[in-house]
Amino acid sequence: MADARTQFLLTEDRIPTHWVNIAPDLPGEPLPPLHPGTHEPAGPDDLTPIFPIALIEQEMSPHPDVEIPEEVREAYKLWRPTPLHRARNLEKALGTPAHIYYKYEGVSPAGSHKPNSAIPQAYENAKAGVKKLVTETGAGQWGSSLAFASSLFGLECEVFMVGSSYDQKPYRRSMMQTWGATVHRSPSPLTEAGRAQAANETGSLGIAISEAVEIAAQSDDANYALGSVLSHVCLHQTVIGQETIAQMEMAGEEPDVVIGCVGGGSNFAGLAFPWLRRNLREGKSVRFVGAEPAACPTLTKGVYAYDFGDTVGLTPLMPMYTLGHDFVPPPVHAGGLRYHGDSPLLCAIVKAGLIGAKAVRQNPTFEAAIQFSRTEGIIPAPESAHAIRVAIDEALEAKEAGEERVILFGLSGHGHFDLAAYDAYLAGTLEDPEFDEAGAHAAIEKLPEGLPAIA
Amino acid sequence: MADARTQFLLTEDRIPTHWVNIAPDLPGEPLPPLHPGTHEPAGPDDLTPIFPIALIEQEMSPHPDVEIPEEVREAYKLWRPTPLHRARNLEKALGTPAHIYYKYEGVSPAGSHKPNSAIPQAYENAKAGVKKLVTETGAGQWGSSLAFASSLFGLECEVFMVGSSYDQKPYRRSMMQTWGATVHRSPSPLTEAGRAQAANETGSLGIAISEAVEIAAQSDDANYALGSVLSHVCLHQTVIGQETIAQMEMAGEEPDVVIGCVGGGSNFAGLAFPWLRRNLREGKSVRFVGAEPAACPTLTKGVYAYDFGDTVGLTPLMPMYTLGHDFVPPPVHAGGLRYHGDSPLLCAIVKAGLIGAKAVRQNPTFEAAIQFSRTEGIIPAPESAHAIRVAIDEALEAKEAGEERVILFGLSGHGHFDLAAYDAYLAGTLEDPEFDEAGAHAAIEKLPEGLPAIA
Repeated sequence: MADARTQFLLTEDRIPTHWVNIAPDLPGEPLPPLHPGTHEPAGPDDLTPIFPIALIEQEMSPHPDVEIPEEVREAYKLWRPTPLHRARNLEKALGTPAHIYYKYEGVSPAGSHKPNSAIPQAYENAKAGVKKLVTETGAGQWGSSLAFASSLFGLECEVFMVGSSYDQKPYRRSMMQTWGATVHRSPSPLTEAGRAQAANETGSLGIAISEAVEIAAQSDDANYALGSVLSHVCLHQTVIGQETIAQMEMAGEEPDVVIGCVGGGSNFAGLAFPWLRRNLREGKSVRFVGAEPAACPTLTKGVYAYDFGDTVGLTPLMPMYTLGHDFVPPPVHAGGLRYHGDSPLLCAIVKAGLIGAKAVRQNPTFEAAIQFSRTEGIIPAPESAHAIRVAIDEALEAKEAGEERVILFGLSGHGHFDLAAYDAYLAGTLEDPEFDEAGAHAAIEKLPEGLPAIA
Repeated sequence: MADARTQFLLTEDRIPTHWVNIAPDLPGEPLPPLHPGTHEPAGPDDLTPIFPIALIEQEMSPHPDVEIPEEVREAYKLWRPTPLHRARNLEKALGTPAHIYYKYEGVSPAGSHKPNSAIPQAYENAKAGVKKLVTETGAGQWGSSLAFASSLFGLECEVFMVGSSYDQKPYRRSMMQTWGATVHRSPSPLTEAGRAQAANETGSLGIAISEAVEIAAQSDDANYALGSVLSHVCLHQTVIGQETIAQMEMAGEEPDVVIGCVGGGSNFAGLAFPWLRRNLREGKSVRFVGAEPAACPTLTKGVYAYDFGDTVGLTPLMPMYTLGHDFVPPPVHAGGLRYHGDSPLLCAIVKAGLIGAKAVRQNPTFEAAIQFSRTEGIIPAPESAHAIRVAIDEALEAKEAGEERVILFGLSGHGHFDLAAYDAYLAGTLEDPEFDEAGAHAAIEKLPEGLPAIA
């Protein structure tokens, strides 16, 4: 029996005490990451120059539950637990018998789910005596989250921001500076990687990663921080899913389907993994859909292979769905979803058939975002709007079938810094780029050779 | 004994059922508004061309408690109750024994307290069969809130946006359009008031009001909506203060002082009036400070007199503190506080000595905003930062005196659309304009003559 409320709020004592590590519950042995030079399995020692040992232990933890440090839970209290809403106005507008719930992570100071990992990363680095964190940012969500987290733990923060984004989103830069971070336009003259790309005007996430890693690796008291893809980042995000399990219990409903947008994968992993573990342990059968842009369809059209995490080839080789590390996705506005690969952990689960994926086009995604804004109020980030599109499609299918389907989706952030894209959509000038299949094919052909086969 | 929590959350059944009308609890008879032409007391009939009768009744209600319609409470559930936070990190940074609490209204879809009144205004107009709401907006907070509320109740919405703001804050405009509103740059060629000002490039709030009123008065199925100043707007905002009374009870503390920023007065009134009624009825002695910009010090340096609400002289004459209706405040970034007058209801209470006020300079205000951002995370609107400045000053006084003072302030909105001002502050180029005393003196000299004396 569904509860009549619109918002399902938890008190701060309900912030989870542990993160959910899904790895030990999965069948089979995970494929190891490989050293980019030797192609041998990479171990903790390969990561110590840029990460503190506590995060490396989390990355490779064999424990299904990883305790959240008290200081991290204290910092989470600045905005967590986040609300779960029933989208009653949207349901009415769609005329669907489906019940639609959304978990809203945009209430964090930085406006998205990213601080869930920025906080523990800043905490563990500060505890390890590190003085400065260096990172890259594309759309700006991760850079602002790390700037915010660094300000809380007294760390310096240096951000290499992709040039095109630096120029187009000056206010994301201002936000980072307000929290005390130093922001460089990438490619910059500060690094070898940057100087080698001086002719490249707009930059790319791959170049910005290379610049940040270079600075962090050079300095004894600086470390690097990554906002998605790696397993410890997915781990940190599981506060999202755990809270939704408690909130759906309050709502008195069991979701039929759980939906989230996928860029590097940590947002979707954070929502889905706690529910997936429940499926595996308790024989439940919640269905999962990762929503990705049709212009960058990693999970739905990529190959499953070892590939680099960055464009330049500095990171370990990771087993994942990939469009090829030098594939350049067309400039869709969901900058956070323009990534050639995906979290290896999430990819292994998709490969095992435990989680599904769907690619959606940019214009129907903005159509969904507008419908959501005008019924539920919140103007979503373009990334999050991919999950809304899939949720609305599920609700319309349920209407067609006369089914009271229960839909839960993750609303990962607000779109306050993405309104230029809304302008373009409303003016009818938003492009809807196709997937560059030939480009991805060429990039996949260039994947490194002589690696272990993974079928 | 103070509760150890950081956030004090109420469930949605704790959204107030009534608004607090402070008027009947005040000593003496209120001075009536006067017709702008005849100077006779203005009655309901003077307002019916632009407001629905339900709102006029609220404006003049003799009842201390005004029931909130169920449909309005339902819409409030999209984001209310809003959180009360204890600013533990800020307290630590200040090294103060004071306890600092803040009520955060920036979680609303439009990012401020303004939807608290936009929702009931849209609801009552829709119920009265009105098809379209017309309004003005300066900084853009009110325009976006009315656009949002109109989208929920199926109303058209037309916004005249002050020209300089229209040019400088394109994303506030995009936000209104995302919610379906039509936005005009004011002065516009659409109205007589606008055409008469065609040579005025930047526009002003006074002109924009005149344009909106002109359009609303001409049309049978369009009405005007105002986002502050009037008593029914202050009434709607009292959900803020009522929730804080319940939340401070949860926190187990009694505030010594309640602080809010004052532009037209509705934000501060909404926070303060429920606490003030408690003072009056229960013999409590909570102290109140309205925080205003030193460049536009209506409550601290204005005269108490009858004046127009707008620049052109179309509105009723209202008894209030005023710097003169043609005083032009210097361009401080807190656009929402650049108003020559203030809510007549709030002014009468200040005049009676029941509520105090303090003016603060722009640069120290931004200094407080940065300190707050780096400790509590949230980047505040420049308007709200005035309350933070006063709250920090109170906490530092308490430190000096070794007092465990309990401070409650209203954080009326976030600064996501004000980051250009933060940029200027961080670059050291933010101006800190003085009060134009001669300008205000000249404007006050030109107040209409032959009105009832009010001393």
